[in-house]
Amino acid sequence: MAPVKVFGPARSTNVARVLVCLEEVGAEYEVVNIDFQAKEHKSPEHLARNPFGQIPAFQDGDVVLFESRAIAKYVLRKYKSADADLLREGNLKEAAMVDVWTEVEAHQYNPAISPIVYECLVNPAMRGIPPNQKVVDEALEKLKKVLDVYEARLSKTKFLAGDFLSFADLNHFPYTYYFMATPHAAVFDSYPHVKAWWESIVSRPSVKKLSANMPTKAP
Amino acid sequence: MAPVKVFGPARSTNVARVLVCLEEVGAEYEVVNIDFQAKEHKSPEHLARNPFGQIPAFQDGDVVLFESRAIAKYVLRKYKSADADLLREGNLKEAAMVDVWTEVEAHQYNPAISPIVYECLVNPAMRGIPPNQKVVDEALEKLKKVLDVYEARLSKTKFLAGDFLSFADLNHFPYTYYFMATPHAAVFDSYPHVKAWWESIVSRPSVKKLSANMPTKAP
Repeated sequence: MAPVKVFGPARSTNVARVLVCLEEVGAEYEVVNIDFQAKEHKSPEHLARNPFGQIPAFQDGDVVLFESRAIAKYVLRKYKSADADLLREGNLKEAAMVDVWTEVEAHQYNPAISPIVYECLVNPAMRGIPPNQKVVDEALEKLKKVLDVYEARLSKTKFLAGDFLSFADLNHFPYTYYFMATPHAAVFDSYPHVKAWWESIVSRPSVKKLSANMPTKAP
Repeated sequence: MAPVKVFGPARSTNVARVLVCLEEVGAEYEVVNIDFQAKEHKSPEHLARNPFGQIPAFQDGDVVLFESRAIAKYVLRKYKSADADLLREGNLKEAAMVDVWTEVEAHQYNPAISPIVYECLVNPAMRGIPPNQKVVDEALEKLKKVLDVYEARLSKTKFLAGDFLSFADLNHFPYTYYFMATPHAAVFDSYPHVKAWWESIVSRPSVKKLSANMPTKAP
């Protein structure tokens, strides 16, 4: 069976969201780089994969997908095993909790943490632009409110959806990994359960392997 | 069996997202209003349902959920039937296409259409603030680019995920319904396949019933 293909640079947060799922289920895959400087993301070949001209895109034979969370779910369903059932769709209640915290990542956590990563890492390294402190401060306030909720949750259950690792947890890896390379990483020290949860994620072999290819400094 | 409970005003877009799923599967449900003026959304009772103090929340016996898309999926799984299989999780490829277009609604369509609804309907009616034309114009440009992709997609398949109605389509009802009451509704006239798709959604009994309680003008 030919390995599935993921289109986009492995260092991108949305690509890493898919790759961590492929690693967790032990699937064979190939990363096909998309060169943004050469505008490959707007090429007819890539637009046929993703009509919005974004990354990642994904191919498994005649199945061509885009949107990182949709691709990740396809991967987790296709390669589901007793050792790796990260959506729990066979259990109505567990699946619902995975969905709740997957949506929380998308609509609460991500909007708070991503501006900090952009201002403190991406803009300085890629565009030579210093961080906009007002944007960073507002996002930090937002993030702390989100982390209050996470701390309460993770003081009751080992992982977000319950006492089992799920897609909801893995989704937090890419942005949190980059956030930990900003000058604001110490924010997590005030949230001991969140910090222990993050340490359990970042020490997973899948995350260690992928983060080796996610540089936090300009080359 | 006691009917499930949905907490939040039925006219809210995120509440309507859940209600349309309940209607489509024919489930018994009760809407419990949350009075924002009385700050009921920040009450201990509501924070126990949704720690972010937002709406909707949902209760089915001991299952308490928040985040509208997660609640909707729980409803669609629980009440799935041969007549109403709106997630298609039994079919790897179909489920993936439902997920792709569900994510497109969340991350492409919604961010483009919602500012227009806020500026043209919500702010004037609720706060007496006139629309910010710059915000509206930018969102309209964004929306047209999204509709270009939808037009291409819907010229090939009857619905977004394929030739079957799915959760991905239903998700578009609340904001599109309100958008059609703004002065910019005619934008859809340039996209004949999108318009026909929207007309097929808005003529569904579920949507007709719910939209009767979704006022487009200030009381």
